[in-house]
Amino acid sequence: MPTDRQSRREIVSLGRALHERGYVAAMDGNLSVRLDRKRILCTPTSVSKGAMRPSDMVIVDPEGRRLHGRRHVSSEIGMHLLIYRLRPDVNAVVHAHPPTATGFAAAGMPLNQPLVCEVVIGLGSIPLARYGTPGTPELAETLEPLIPEYDAILMSNHGVVSYGSDLQHAYMKMEIVEHFAQIALVTHLLGKQRPLEGPQLEKLIVARGKYQGLTSAAPLPLNLPYITGEGEGGESRKREPEVASFEGVARSRRTLSRSR
Amino acid sequence: MPTDRQSRREIVSLGRALHERGYVAAMDGNLSVRLDRKRILCTPTSVSKGAMRPSDMVIVDPEGRRLHGRRHVSSEIGMHLLIYRLRPDVNAVVHAHPPTATGFAAAGMPLNQPLVCEVVIGLGSIPLARYGTPGTPELAETLEPLIPEYDAILMSNHGVVSYGSDLQHAYMKMEIVEHFAQIALVTHLLGKQRPLEGPQLEKLIVARGKYQGLTSAAPLPLNLPYITGEGEGGESRKREPEVASFEGVARSRRTLSRSR
Amino acid sequence: MPTDRQSRREIVSLGRALHERGYVAAMDGNLSVRLDRKRILCTPTSVSKGAMRPSDMVIVDPEGRRLHGRRHVSSEIGMHLLIYRLRPDVNAVVHAHPPTATGFAAAGMPLNQPLVCEVVIGLGSIPLARYGTPGTPELAETLEPLIPEYDAILMSNHGVVSYGSDLQHAYMKMEIVEHFAQIALVTHLLGKQRPLEGPQLEKLIVARGKYQGLTSAAPLPLNLPYITGEGEGGESRKREPEVASFEGVARSRRTLSRSR
Amino acid sequence: MPTDRQSRREIVSLGRALHERGYVAAMDGNLSVRLDRKRILCTPTSVSKGAMRPSDMVIVDPEGRRLHGRRHVSSEIGMHLLIYRLRPDVNAVVHAHPPTATGFAAAGMPLNQPLVCEVVIGLGSIPLARYGTPGTPELAETLEPLIPEYDAILMSNHGVVSYGSDLQHAYMKMEIVEHFAQIALVTHLLGKQRPLEGPQLEKLIVARGKYQGLTSAAPLPLNLPYITGEGEGGESRKREPEVASFEGVARSRRTLSRSR
Repeated sequence: MPTDRQSRREIVSLGRALHERGYVAAMDGNLSVRLDRKRILCTPTSVSKGAMRPSDMVIVDPEGRRLHGRRHVSSEIGMHLLIYRLRPDVNAVVHAHPPTATGFAAAGMPLNQPLVCEVVIGLGSIPLARYGTPGTPELAETLEPLIPEYDAILMSNHGVVSYGSDLQHAYMKMEIVEHFAQIALVTHLLGKQRPLEGPQLEKLIVARGKYQGLTSAAPLPLNLPYITGEGEGGESRKREPEVASFEGVARSRRTLSRSR
Repeated sequence: MPTDRQSRREIVSLGRALHERGYVAAMDGNLSVRLDRKRILCTPTSVSKGAMRPSDMVIVDPEGRRLHGRRHVSSEIGMHLLIYRLRPDVNAVVHAHPPTATGFAAAGMPLNQPLVCEVVIGLGSIPLARYGTPGTPELAETLEPLIPEYDAILMSNHGVVSYGSDLQHAYMKMEIVEHFAQIALVTHLLGKQRPLEGPQLEKLIVARGKYQGLTSAAPLPLNLPYITGEGEGGESRKREPEVASFEGVARSRRTLSRSR
Repeated sequence: MPTDRQSRREIVSLGRALHERGYVAAMDGNLSVRLDRKRILCTPTSVSKGAMRPSDMVIVDPEGRRLHGRRHVSSEIGMHLLIYRLRPDVNAVVHAHPPTATGFAAAGMPLNQPLVCEVVIGLGSIPLARYGTPGTPELAETLEPLIPEYDAILMSNHGVVSYGSDLQHAYMKMEIVEHFAQIALVTHLLGKQRPLEGPQLEKLIVARGKYQGLTSAAPLPLNLPYITGEGEGGESRKREPEVASFEGVARSRRTLSRSR
Repeated sequence: MPTDRQSRREIVSLGRALHERGYVAAMDGNLSVRLDRKRILCTPTSVSKGAMRPSDMVIVDPEGRRLHGRRHVSSEIGMHLLIYRLRPDVNAVVHAHPPTATGFAAAGMPLNQPLVCEVVIGLGSIPLARYGTPGTPELAETLEPLIPEYDAILMSNHGVVSYGSDLQHAYMKMEIVEHFAQIALVTHLLGKQRPLEGPQLEKLIVARGKYQGLTSAAPLPLNLPYITGEGEGGESRKREPEVASFEGVARSRRTLSRSR
């Protein structure tokens, strides 16, 4: 567990990174760190995430009640708390609006084509949660079914949320999402996608097991006709046998990695 | 009210931000701050906004007569003065040419689709003023009907103007406009938009009332089938009643926020 | 005239700007300053323009013979010398490959639609020179007819050259070209252009006369069917009467500005 | 040969450049330098390449066995070792995922159109290797036939690898690849390419011989109607003879440059 002081500095520095990279505009975005079982350190509302000071942060309890800090906590704290509740392995959450990924989210398109092998290793696939009004329980409802299975989620007409075992990893997953969205967009502009296929994806499971960097056990994207828009939501229903077995491997690994 | 000295520094720093982000090229753009009822601090003409010094600024009176400073005031000072006249709640104006938003402005397309919830909260919608020759009264005429209702405006074949209660807020609205234009462009490139609909927009009004960050009471974008032009998506046809009532709410809130 | 020392520093700093903005990759690009009638200060070949030192520069005479410096002068010095010969009002030249503008140049499309008023004021229009092998007299031949009339030129399958009364102005024109190319590209992506029309362009002539920033007397782009590709090269031939009279004004102004 | 210490610093600084430019996300990418015949200095796995310290590096022998360093070496070390084995003239390798070039790689499209003369001089053409699972011998197999002929390679559904006589040159070639991919993408977005043709390419061979900057003897891209697939522009059909002779010249030059 990082110290309070260290986490405040890290939030300041990664908030600046979010702003410099154009992942947030104005006062968008929020970041949090689980300091221990009873305390969550979170960015305040109404502040540019590119210009925060360590003392701007707010500490809340797992129900969102303010324990420490003069400012008001982010209005999206509910989403952070939900993620900490559902994912004991997660200690940090980042929410931002990186423009390319948010464009996919506003077009109603998940980032679920296996176009780049290291994204498959690092994130599996990035699903699209349906729209929920920010700052209301509706938003949490749309995310709830996806949080246990994925480490980064597109939020319809809103942005992206990512999370990990520490703040660096949560932030890095945000970078992967936008970077991958840029690559995927280029393939759309070129009018051509050549996604990885079944046997290639199976070999990546093995690679993922040996890989020392960021990995994810999220279900891999397979047969998803998301361009044509048909069968939205039903994507994971129709998976072929090899996928099923792949998911088996993935889940057992997830158990492992969470028990670390 | 900020001091003269503080405002000069802030203009220098946000001018640099405009240039670093590519929102202005060469000597484009201008920024101003209303110091008090009789004095407006404004950037000079013929200077890169990325390389100004505090002493470069010019002070003019509300009629645009130079009170202080060796340089010539921006040739677009008329637009700034008009905004201060029509919006007593506004104390700062930023004009720039962020490339994506300016591309929409050169294509004759407003940024009026409710594609991202936080943009709806922060700006409502971003209308397109018709073209007026810069540096002439014609330009002011094209903006005049829009200034009372909106906080950021696309100017046809020209760029963007945004304004707010202080310089930080005016600048942040410029960031929102370009950030949103990028997102909207991605949806165009993907060939698919899934804008927020009536009931979702109504809930955002409530959210906007509770929101502590940047908010706007500008009319929300509703019935504007601007892409197809012919309105193949008939969704927006049946919304007139809600819009009317929504605008009612919006206006009453605006009154509130201005009296702050 | 700037001093030798001052110019070396300015070249270093604007070379770094070219690299940071992605206008050059690897060892691309070159910059020069006319120090006096007999000496031209120029960047060396085989060096990243993002990492030069003042002592890297080379001084050549108007025939390109090295007068000072240990390094080899840029292999494109011939283009710089031609510009200085044809334009006595020019004291600095910048050559780079900004990616959007270079994309237009590789597509065979000039940037000649009057889509943004301040570009019309600052540069008029940006023509496309036909391809010439770099480092050979062929290249100079393709530019020669365009240099007297324009301040920035797209070079087919190559990049952009811009020039001005000093290095800052030459560099700023490079920024305008790429910034405008980005805006023009957005309008292409949106599938819609709404260029300025005859009467609007005529009013801009008057505005240009009063404008204190960067101005150009280059012929304004008018009736150029460049998208469809028809009539390449013949563009300036078919200008309508008002254009003719506009060019008259433009030329007289050019004479004035050069005699300054 | 650079010293160990100098190389560590250079890797840190160019790793930061890769991250700042968005060529890598999260912990993507890897860089290496051949210190001498028995030692290769390489970046570790599981570290952001934007935040490395000189002491993070690992030294391995030409079979990939760790000689020095506490961290684990990059899981893609096999690719680096293969390049050093096949190319005695190469002393540094850079692997990254620049988004535009990686988009081409995920679309299954090589960057082989001669659209920009300086890219032809610097890299010739950039081929596309078929997909191979990262961290396995499969990956090396896909690259092996291309390494002797090219200095930068697109890797299907993966990214880009480039290499050169030192780290600066290897890095610069990565910049050229992404910069060129951006330019090529713009021509696709504009729906128009005007590639260099046979005689123009032949003159570039001569220019390349005299050029002092980055050059490559990779075969020039000629008869590759890769967009339309069907070659509607029959231009490239009739060029076989020149290509053959051109390649002859290219190879002889390669021999020369390697013996330097």
